Formats: sequence, structure tokens, C-alpha cells
Amino acid sequence: MTTDRYQQGMDKLKELTTPDENNPTGHMEVGESFKDIAPDLTQMVVEFAFGNVYSRPGLDNKQKVLTTISALVAQGTPQIGMHVITGLKVGLTPDEIAGCIMHLIPYVGFPRSLSALKVAQDVFAEQGVAISEEMAEQLKNR
Amino acid sequence: MTTDRYQQGMDKLKELTTPDENNPTGHMEVGESFKDIAPDLTQMVVEFAFGNVYSRPGLDNKQKVLTTISALVAQGTPQIGMHVITGLKVGLTPDEIAGCIMHLIPYVGFPRSLSALKVAQDVFAEQGVAISEEMAEQLKNR
Amino acid sequence: MTTDRYQQGMDKLKELTTPDENNPTGHMEVGESFKDIAPDLTQMVVEFAFGNVYSRPGLDNKQKVLTTISALVAQGTPQIGMHVITGLKVGLTPDEIAGCIMHLIPYVGFPRSLSALKVAQDVFAEQGVAISEEMAEQLKNR
Amino acid sequence: MTTDRYQQGMDKLKELTTPDENNPTGHMEVGESFKDIAPDLTQMVVEFAFGNVYSRPGLDNKQKVLTTISALVAQGTPQIGMHVITGLKVGLTPDEIAGCIMHLIPYVGFPRSLSALKVAQDVFAEQGVAISEEMAEQLKNR
Amino acid sequence: MTTDRYQQGMDKLKELTTPDENNPTGHMEVGESFKDIAPDLTQMVVEFAFGNVYSRPGLDNKQKVLTTISALVAQGTPQIGMHVITGLKVGLTPDEIAGCIMHLIPYVGFPRSLSALKVAQDVFAEQGVAISEEMAEQLKNR
Amino acid sequence: MTTDRYQQGMDKLKELTTPDENNPTGHMEVGESFKDIAPDLTQMVVEFAFGNVYSRPGLDNKQKVLTTISALVAQGTPQIGMHVITGLKVGLTPDEIAGCIMHLIPYVGFPRSLSALKVAQDVFAEQGVAISEEMAEQLKNR
Repeated sequence: MTTDRYQQGMDKLKELTTPDENNPTGHMEVGESFKDIAPDLTQMVVEFAFGNVYSRPGLDNKQKVLTTISALVAQGTPQIGMHVITGLKVGLTPDEIAGCIMHLIPYVGFPRSLSALKVAQDVFAEQGVAISEEMAEQLKNR
Repeated sequence: MTTDRYQQGMDKLKELTTPDENNPTGHMEVGESFKDIAPDLTQMVVEFAFGNVYSRPGLDNKQKVLTTISALVAQGTPQIGMHVITGLKVGLTPDEIAGCIMHLIPYVGFPRSLSALKVAQDVFAEQGVAISEEMAEQLKNR
Repeated sequence: MTTDRYQQGMDKLKELTTPDENNPTGHMEVGESFKDIAPDLTQMVVEFAFGNVYSRPGLDNKQKVLTTISALVAQGTPQIGMHVITGLKVGLTPDEIAGCIMHLIPYVGFPRSLSALKVAQDVFAEQGVAISEEMAEQLKNR
Repeated sequence: MTTDRYQQGMDKLKELTTPDENNPTGHMEVGESFKDIAPDLTQMVVEFAFGNVYSRPGLDNKQKVLTTISALVAQGTPQIGMHVITGLKVGLTPDEIAGCIMHLIPYVGFPRSLSALKVAQDVFAEQGVAISEEMAEQLKNR
Repeated sequence: MTTDRYQQGMDKLKELTTPDENNPTGHMEVGESFKDIAPDLTQMVVEFAFGNVYSRPGLDNKQKVLTTISALVAQGTPQIGMHVITGLKVGLTPDEIAGCIMHLIPYVGFPRSLSALKVAQDVFAEQGVAISEEMAEQLKNR
Repeated sequence: MTTDRYQQGMDKLKELTTPDENNPTGHMEVGESFKDIAPDLTQMVVEFAFGNVYSRPGLDNKQKVLTTISALVAQGTPQIGMHVITGLKVGLTPDEIAGCIMHLIPYVGFPRSLSALKVAQDVFAEQGVAISEEMAEQLKNR
């Protein structure tokens, strides 16, 4: 069954990723690798997470990804990397992504922030991006 | 001892709150009520949370508060209300604050988001603000 | 917009609760009290939580509620009471509900299990139910 | 010291696993690998977790394992695999185990459920089991 | 059934609390208020938590309570107050208890530490104790 | 900018680790590996975690590390190993470190304690230390 909600979700997904022939949903894992154990997972992710939630007004895409990353840092869940890539795709700068993880130290403690920082560091290296020289300079001289 | 970092923190605090004679740090609890049990708590909060962290470049004040609220929703900690007030003070709209809490449902589950939504609802009522009619209209017709 | 998924969810809800004129969704809070701040919450809860998830094959209703209660005990979230009521409605016995919370002690620790036990104790009292004399007898003589 | 509680626990363990000559407690790790650092751990696990808790009336073995898996999914702890094996041993079907993990999405969020789904997928592959064709068919056509 | 382990637990409990005629286990809640819903809870708490765990060598009583409080601060569970009382009973000073909660800020974040500090502050007031003037003085002049 | 607080932190760090030419902060990761993504992290760690927090009166170094390890066991965060090394450096015995992790089972559950026990077991092996024969003997005969 293809619902309107599903279509809404697929449309939203295209804003958040760069699909190609091999990956119609781009870098986003939306449940395709779980077809054998949960054949309806992709449908749930697309209808609910993208059709109901990401399509909602209120926040722009950059704010949505910032909010997502913040919650995952707090939870200590390992799926942060995928959302860092989405963040870069929708226009969050490395300064904003690193800034978000550092900002959370007083709320979630050093261990969770440092685990997330390592993930972001690895994604930045893979994607060939880095924090701006301007920010680096300011942070060295505080 | 009043360090430069402390001064940096107090300057930042003034951007985030509306101090008056009775409350030099405005609505923000920065440890004053714990003077008997932890006389250095205010110093830690001001120096570290505001001097080191909130004063950092990378995110603007609105993003910093959005990030903070997101982490607290994920943790299920009860201090969300104070940060919703700070968010309104620095210019986050009720649409953005409610939008952030709703956006987190797929990541933290309904129970944590609904607990946070109740807190935001109460703060909005106290502060006499509400989500925009435009957003309410859009959400009713999805 | 009323989707098929919404209808599926409403049908499922009727199995889990006892609706009356004043409460078309019975004791289940499905977002009605958040109409002002999140007008689409009920739609999300009904479409996703009940239409996509509770309507899924694999587990029967008793197992679904047992699974839900177990996760909430582990999280320490305060919404357990509503699900204890749903459990009783779909046929879980007080022996099973208390048994579930006690079974989790080695996995979540005494503090979280005892907090949940208090909630279940209060709901049992309100609903006028109790663990069976047979189980009580066995547990006193272990 | 071998207490009655210890004997009760060892008897229960035999129901939950398939012991052989090399592994008197079957696939269940009950602390044997920690003999050097915690020589009393096995005693604690057997007496308490199996003698006091798993031997308790109220839930049957299938419900006990379902409850255990649900709590571990919510916590995000990595020991789920061992309990999926126990679940299969006591008669939970792959449909029920996958169903439990999928059912928890609205309560614990996608990240924790997807991490658990990966573990179950790997255990199913190792054990040569899969969800039923009937359930797969139903889930594809929702 | 009264096991040796139960006797070991009751002996240990006497070191940690001040029993009187009305409260044979002193201020410690060991499950007595849950007799109706979980008649075996007291047995589990006494046998396992006190007979197996608190009776273990390795840490002295002060270290055991410090360790307990630290874990509860990290979890955000509401049972900290009872353990603060136990701490005072076994000889932890208010300086040590407040010191432990403050020490955890970099690991668990301000929100969880501040919630715990409030609980400790209330217990100190009830018990008529306070941090030492010497420590207060040092902390004011850092 | 080198603040007094920074100097206070560096002095404290020397008590907790054994620096050499290659590692001026010894085995402690204080943010040096994150220079590219967060050039101010080391400053924050040294000023706040060591200058403000570890330098605080109230607890001795052994108690501070015991408290830290307990919180990390409860959180399930992966950074426990570094603090086990610090514990051994400041004089915690393997009996105390293993004792702390085992003591937490009733509060955090077996899964989190067993994950931590594995980390401690590996660090003990690397450092060539073990629990005392006396404690091992007592624990075998309980």
C-alpha cells in the first residue's frame, strides 16, 4: 500500500540526501537492510519519521538535524554519524555541528560528548571538511 | 576569586536573561539556592557553563538553547522549563520550541516527548504565548 | 486528512480500551490534551503508534502491553500507569503485571523496578484488583 | 557454600538452555569468564537471577524472556543476543522476537530498536531461523 | 524459608541503619510496603542486596554507600535520599556526600547533579547536619 | 590564555597520572586528540574538570575516582578503562575497583555491571594486577 503519507515522506527524504541509481534514498538507512526481519520497517520510517515528522512546519531542515544530533549525543546511541552527514547536506557547517556537540558538555557530561566528537571527527575526515580557520583561531585564543 | 572566565560568563548570562534588582541573573538558576551545601556551584556554573561553553563561537544563542532543550528531552531530566523560558528570551518562537519537542518523537519515543510537551505547554501559558495560528492551521490539515 | 492508517489505528484502539461518550478513546491519552501546542499529535499517535505499530502481527495484545510496560520500567518514564490499565483491559492478570516488574530487577536494578511497582500498586488499588491468593501463597513460602 | 537457592537456580537454568559436556550452563554466560576478578559472580547470578527471579511464578518462560529483551532494547545494552537465543530455546518464535523489537519503536525511538534488530537479525542467521512467510507476506501488504 | 543468606543480609542491615521497635530495618525500605503486590520482595532485597552484595569484602561501608549514591545520581532515580541517610549513619560526612554529588558534574552533567544536590540539601536539613565551616570557607575563596 | 584555574588543573592532573616526555598528561586523554575539531577542549577539561572539580576539597583522590567509575558504570559509557588506570595510580586496589563494580549490580542491573567488569578485567591484565588472594579465597567460600 502506498499512502499519501509515504509519498510525503519520500519527497522530504530527497531534500535531506543525494540519491543516485544505487541508493534511491542516498546515504540514509531507512530500513532497506532489514527487509528479511521487518519488511514493513521502511514503510514506517518513510511514513512516520519523514512523512509525519520531518515534513512538519516549525523548524527548518538545519534546525531539525541539529535537534536530532543533540538528542542522540544525550542518549549515547551509535547512529550519530548518519545524521552528521545529513547535517552537512542540508547546510549545517562543521562549526555548527562541532559547536553543538561541545555545547552539550554541561548537560550530558564529557564522556557522551567526547564519544560523539570522535564520530563527527571521522565523518568530517571522510567528507573532506573541517571547522573554519576563523573559529579555530578564536578557540585557540580564549 | 573572580576570574576573567567568570566575567565572561556573567556577560553572556545577561544576553540570555532579563536581570532585575532582586534577581541579578534573571530567571536562570545558577546555583544561588545551593550556597549552603555547595558554595562554589555558582562559580562553576558561571565560569564553565557560561564563560567556557555558552560564550563559544559556532552556534548562535537560539541554536544553543534548541540544542540544550533537545538533550534534556532525551534525558528525561526535569529542568526543561527554565530553558524554554531562556529560548523565548533569545528569540526562539513557540513554533520552534514545540517543533523541536515534536521532532524528537522518532528518536526518543512518545513518553519522553510528551513529558516535555507538558512542561512547554505550562511555560507557554505562564508567559502568555502560543504557537502561531498559521502553524496551527497547517497542522490541523495534514 | 483522514488516512486509511488513521482508521486502522482507531480500530485497534477500540480493542485496547473501553470508550464511552465522554472519552472516545477511553482511558488512553492519545494527544487530545495537547491540541493547543501540537494539533497533529493525535494524528501521529493514532496513525503511527496504533495504525502502524499496535496493528502489526507477531505479538498478541497481551504480549504487546507486557513489552511496552517492560520498556517503560527500564526507562524510568512516568507513563507506566496508563499501560497497566491497558494491560488489565486486554487480559493481563495482576500476577503477570507484577511478575513482569519483579522479573526486571536483575536487568534494571531495584530502584527502577520499585518505582514501577508503586505505580502498579496504586493502579491495582484504584481498579480493585490484586495478585491471586495462589501466587501470594507461593511467594510467601519460597 | 551451595544453598537451596543455588540448586533452585541451576534447575531453572536447565529449562532455559541446552547444556552439554563443555558448557554445563549451555549458551548462558553466568559469570564463568569472570572467575579471576569476581569469583562469587556465578553464585550471585545463579542464586539471585535464576533461583529468586526466573523461578518466580506469575509469568511463563516465554513471557520472562520477552520482558527481558524489551528492557534491554530500552537500555541500549549490548547483551541482547544471548537472550534472543534463550527466547528461541523456550519457544518464542522469530515472529514474536522481531515483533517485540518493532513494537518498541514508539516507546524507545528508532535508534535503539534498529540496534536491537541488527542483533536479532544476526542471531537468526546463525541459528538458521527466520520470520514466517505468512507474517512476511502480511507486512509487505500493509 | 529463612536461608543462611537471609540471616547474613539481616546482620548486614543492622550495621547500616538504626532499627527500633517499630522499624526492625530502621530507615531502610526493604520491600515491606509492597507485601500485597510482591510478597517475596523483602526476601530478595535481604538475601541478594544485603546478603550477597553489601556483605561482600572489597569496599568498606562508607565506600559502598558512596558508590551507591554515585550510581543513583547518574541514573537520575528518585531514591537517593534514603542512601544519603544511610551514608550519614555509616560515617560519611556531609562534606563527602556533597563532594561526591559535585564531583559528578563533569560526568553526568549539571541537571542530574543539581537534582541530587536538592535531595541531599533536604536530607541534611531534616537530619540537622551541614557541610563543615572549613570546607565552606575554602569553597568561597577558590 | 592561561588562567589560574588552568594551572590549578594541571597541578591536579600530575597527582592523578604519571606524565613522561611524550605524554605530559600521562595516560589521561584531556582532549589532545581533538585539537582539529575542538581546539578549546583541552582548556575546558583542564580548567573545569581538573581545576574546578578534581581540585575541590571534600573527597580524597581515591574517593573521587571511585565516584567517577560508579557513575560511568551506571551510564554504560565506554570510557571506564581510563579511570580504572587512574584509580590504580592513586592507590585504589583491584579489590576496591572490582568491589565497586560488583556492588552496583542491585542498582544498575547485571548487564551494565558485567560490561564494566570486562573492561576492568582487561585493564588489570594489561597492568599486571589482580584481586588479592585473600579476597578471592573469601569470595569462593561464601
